[in-house]
Amino acid sequence: MWTYQAPVADIAHLMLRVLDAPASWARMPGFDALDADTARGVLEAAGQFASDVLAPTNAPGDLAGCTWSPGGVRTPPGFAQAYRAFVDGGWPALACAPEAGGQGLPQALNAVLYEMLTSANHAWMMYPGLLHGAYEVLLHHGTPELRERYLEPVATGRWLATMNLTEPQAGSDLGLVRTRADTVGGAAAANGGAVRVTGQKIFISGGEHDLTDNIVHLVLCRLADAPPGTRGLSLAIVPKLLPDGRRNAVHCDGIEKKMGIKGSATCQMRFDAAEGWLVGEPNRGLAAMFLMMNSARLQVAMQGVGHLEAATQNAHRYAHERVQMRAARRPADAPPSAADPIAWHPAMRRTLHMLRARTDGCRLVAYRVALLLDEAGHHPDAAQRASAGAAVAFLTPVAKAFFTDLGHRSADEALQVWGGYGFVHDYGIEQAVRDSRIAPIYEGTNEIQAVDLVMRKLLPDGGRAAAALRDALAADADACAALPQGAPFARALRGQLDAWAAADAALLAPAGGDAEWPLRAADDYLAGVGHALLAWAWARIAAFALQPQAAAEPGTRPAAQWLDAARFGVQWLLPQAAVHWARIGQRDAALPEVAAP
Amino acid sequence: MWTYQAPVADIAHLMLRVLDAPASWARMPGFDALDADTARGVLEAAGQFASDVLAPTNAPGDLAGCTWSPGGVRTPPGFAQAYRAFVDGGWPALACAPEAGGQGLPQALNAVLYEMLTSANHAWMMYPGLLHGAYEVLLHHGTPELRERYLEPVATGRWLATMNLTEPQAGSDLGLVRTRADTVGGAAAANGGAVRVTGQKIFISGGEHDLTDNIVHLVLCRLADAPPGTRGLSLAIVPKLLPDGRRNAVHCDGIEKKMGIKGSATCQMRFDAAEGWLVGEPNRGLAAMFLMMNSARLQVAMQGVGHLEAATQNAHRYAHERVQMRAARRPADAPPSAADPIAWHPAMRRTLHMLRARTDGCRLVAYRVALLLDEAGHHPDAAQRASAGAAVAFLTPVAKAFFTDLGHRSADEALQVWGGYGFVHDYGIEQAVRDSRIAPIYEGTNEIQAVDLVMRKLLPDGGRAAAALRDALAADADACAALPQGAPFARALRGQLDAWAAADAALLAPAGGDAEWPLRAADDYLAGVGHALLAWAWARIAAFALQPQAAAEPGTRPAAQWLDAARFGVQWLLPQAAVHWARIGQRDAALPEVAAP
Repeated sequence: MWTYQAPVADIAHLMLRVLDAPASWARMPGFDALDADTARGVLEAAGQFASDVLAPTNAPGDLAGCTWSPGGVRTPPGFAQAYRAFVDGGWPALACAPEAGGQGLPQALNAVLYEMLTSANHAWMMYPGLLHGAYEVLLHHGTPELRERYLEPVATGRWLATMNLTEPQAGSDLGLVRTRADTVGGAAAANGGAVRVTGQKIFISGGEHDLTDNIVHLVLCRLADAPPGTRGLSLAIVPKLLPDGRRNAVHCDGIEKKMGIKGSATCQMRFDAAEGWLVGEPNRGLAAMFLMMNSARLQVAMQGVGHLEAATQNAHRYAHERVQMRAARRPADAPPSAADPIAWHPAMRRTLHMLRARTDGCRLVAYRVALLLDEAGHHPDAAQRASAGAAVAFLTPVAKAFFTDLGHRSADEALQVWGGYGFVHDYGIEQAVRDSRIAPIYEGTNEIQAVDLVMRKLLPDGGRAAAALRDALAADADACAALPQGAPFARALRGQLDAWAAADAALLAPAGGDAEWPLRAADDYLAGVGHALLAWAWARIAAFALQPQAAAEPGTRPAAQWLDAARFGVQWLLPQAAVHWARIGQRDAALPEVAAP
Repeated sequence: MWTYQAPVADIAHLMLRVLDAPASWARMPGFDALDADTARGVLEAAGQFASDVLAPTNAPGDLAGCTWSPGGVRTPPGFAQAYRAFVDGGWPALACAPEAGGQGLPQALNAVLYEMLTSANHAWMMYPGLLHGAYEVLLHHGTPELRERYLEPVATGRWLATMNLTEPQAGSDLGLVRTRADTVGGAAAANGGAVRVTGQKIFISGGEHDLTDNIVHLVLCRLADAPPGTRGLSLAIVPKLLPDGRRNAVHCDGIEKKMGIKGSATCQMRFDAAEGWLVGEPNRGLAAMFLMMNSARLQVAMQGVGHLEAATQNAHRYAHERVQMRAARRPADAPPSAADPIAWHPAMRRTLHMLRARTDGCRLVAYRVALLLDEAGHHPDAAQRASAGAAVAFLTPVAKAFFTDLGHRSADEALQVWGGYGFVHDYGIEQAVRDSRIAPIYEGTNEIQAVDLVMRKLLPDGGRAAAALRDALAADADACAALPQGAPFARALRGQLDAWAAADAALLAPAGGDAEWPLRAADDYLAGVGHALLAWAWARIAAFALQPQAAAEPGTRPAAQWLDAARFGVQWLLPQAAVHWARIGQRDAALPEVAAP
């Protein structure tokens, strides 16, 4: 009943036409040979894997879940076969360097791949989901020996990787991590040095499974003489199987019974003086891990887009199949009937447009961030790399939090389209609601993203990165304003940029001894910026659709439908932004202490 | 980990002090002996049952779910024992007439009972949940013979009852119901006449179970010569066991695998020329059923309040237990520590205040509706009964849709307080999110409620009921304005009432040939009115807390905490209303047709 057909034409339209990614790639050494046809071929092949191979494992995977025994974890039926096909297709290495066995393609294409994998099967996606981050950590922080041993198997997905951060007492607050790393034989701690790792980790996705022989754990831990807090954390690589083939002292003691992504094994891990090696400098583990987390956060943002897409296409299909009651407004050529497709009723039309507008908007913003990520790493001009990097740093927490929030909420709102059937497992949407609920939590809760945005990305540079970003977005308002029918989109975008600038000024103004003030405004600030980005996306999409000479991607929706969604976004969804911006203005609103119960 | 302690003092504070229910009861024959102490005693006993007997069955019931076999349905462990205790305590008959074996207490106390039952175990509550509606249908439409046979067992809960409406093709659109009722031996159809019922029903809560021997099904069906659509529907009573002890031809062919309320058996029912009797006049079944549905809808509104309460008290407790990171603002007397309770962090404070403000506000509105329901049935003055009835008719769809929406969304938002633990079954909140998701769907989806509100409650009387309601609410704005510190609450309430009046004017203005216009605005209108009602509730709660001479209920929160929540509601939550009112203003916003995929 629940299906997923990768919307390759829509995706290609946004990335290759509206954003003209090939023009960016042409400027970057390494990607300059990547033309639109090649990119389109990659998107089509990715779509085929997601739609034909992976999507059919989604509902059965939820029903079967994972099974733990002392001997290991069994993933749901079909997961291992799908993973083999994924590795055989070379997908894990899509955006890895050719030197490491990768295909050297841009992150932007990898981002689309992960959007599609999430739409198709979020739980399964969790297994390869950490590969690229682990690859980056090894590439940038691993010693030559470690890189020699682990880079290729991780890049190609022959061995899967994990990220061991959380402990029962240390979730958002990694400074409380206790897992110990002891150097061997009295040696001083050093990058690549051997350690024995001891401690407990929880919520470890793919900590144990039956998809690959070896599993490469990256473990946040603390050396014996380390300072307390986050400045005393180190990172160790601890493989399940040691280089000589022995089983390492890494144990999975159980898996969680969760709300969703039941096919993903969420493991309780125990390290009993397990053998490992430091990756990166002692006590600098968090910095190394953050490299992995930033890459992971953009990927989580793509999960929001993936859930939006899956809910959108299924709701549209179902709303056209299901008939109930005659509609007050019927197409002129509709035959008489006792009941019409519910897609004709206004409440459902509104939900369907809402889903489409959010999907289009979030997708375009996400692809722009992904293209900036490539620019930050590969642009020939250093200044351009730096400014792209600053933009990515600013946009990543917004995309992670805002898109995952919308991804989950939209699936939840879409469920109403199915009425009572929506609550029943067979129709798929209830699984989507459950699966999508994890994304606002993991890789830093959405509340933590908001704090990161305000305290680390906005305030320290006096708002310069934000202002530069607004200037870049404002160019599209000008382009839009010059087009017939473009004025409402330009006006909406400019209104959002002005409100955003005013919020920056309010947050950057002296706090008058109120140390907590910017923190209180953080969630609204993030949501406000998120809406401003959507206003930009709808303007950009509309501008393309309004240009008679612009060639749309073959097979994508007609320009009028792109415009309908963008216009709905501006008229029906954007007003919500005012609530967030206004709350930042009401700086003195009480947020008193909460009495203990 | 998840606990429920019925907040009896808070409930009594709102019902007995802030709303002064005993003063209303004193005016009504039948309730005039009900003083505050007696009411308090009932609330305490209900709270004890919900907290001590029922709440412990909630998490195990979700894990075990119901088990179907051709022989019947097994409910989760503990459900049957809890049900026996419920019947032995006389709870089903709380608001039934003494003549029918009932206790003759007001609906308002029954409403609180069902709020508590939902907080404690939503799935279990489903079984007795339809008793009172079935009782009302039998009382008002049953022939003396049927009342003699079924009224007492249903009133006392000795036999449970169901409501058989939905069929695969007939959900929101009951006009499509096909289940057939054939009169027996060529007799003309008449109230109380014997029929044979044949057809399939789905989504029948408690269609089969092991809690009572007999089950009394009320079945929407169609006589052979009935006109098509909703004017050709009749209602039949079809018991599982016939008066002579034979098993009737009513079969449960299976139960649904659902997102939540897994302990509630959602049955696929098959009637094979099952023996039954008409209840009410032929072809007037929907009117009789609506009596049941209106009672049911207020009860569903209480479910929203019940979920709000459960999420609120658990989130408050957990946020004070869990420590992560030092807070930017710490109480002056807090000892130094590496990490503080997360309840001290602004994002969590905001969530906790949000939960409390919504719970207080929705609860007060719901209790007012319940008191009006009693007034509509029992006030000695006919004009007063009529105006209370009109107010209830207007408020019921708002309370059903707005509170269930807030109940579910608030549980979903509260889940963030638990971070990763929130996604794990053991902590309870993920179950609350899943369980609460059904309430916006059943008893008429929230979208259907909005259509009902605008098309049946607002437009037909030219907005008179709405205007009368606003006048009554405005009195509290005046009372508030007269108190020191009361002005902001009065201002907020008046602002909402003005916006509501403007929306009525817009909806009542000639539509200029746009037959669909009010339908497009219906969802925003309902949400706007919901916010106006919250503004009233916060003003009323604040007014009470601001009166130095007003005696608060012993054991309830200090006045300052009631004020904190009300103030947070006005400052942080009420701005959302502007979005809904503004959308009604933008009458020409495009809501174009949605192209078929």
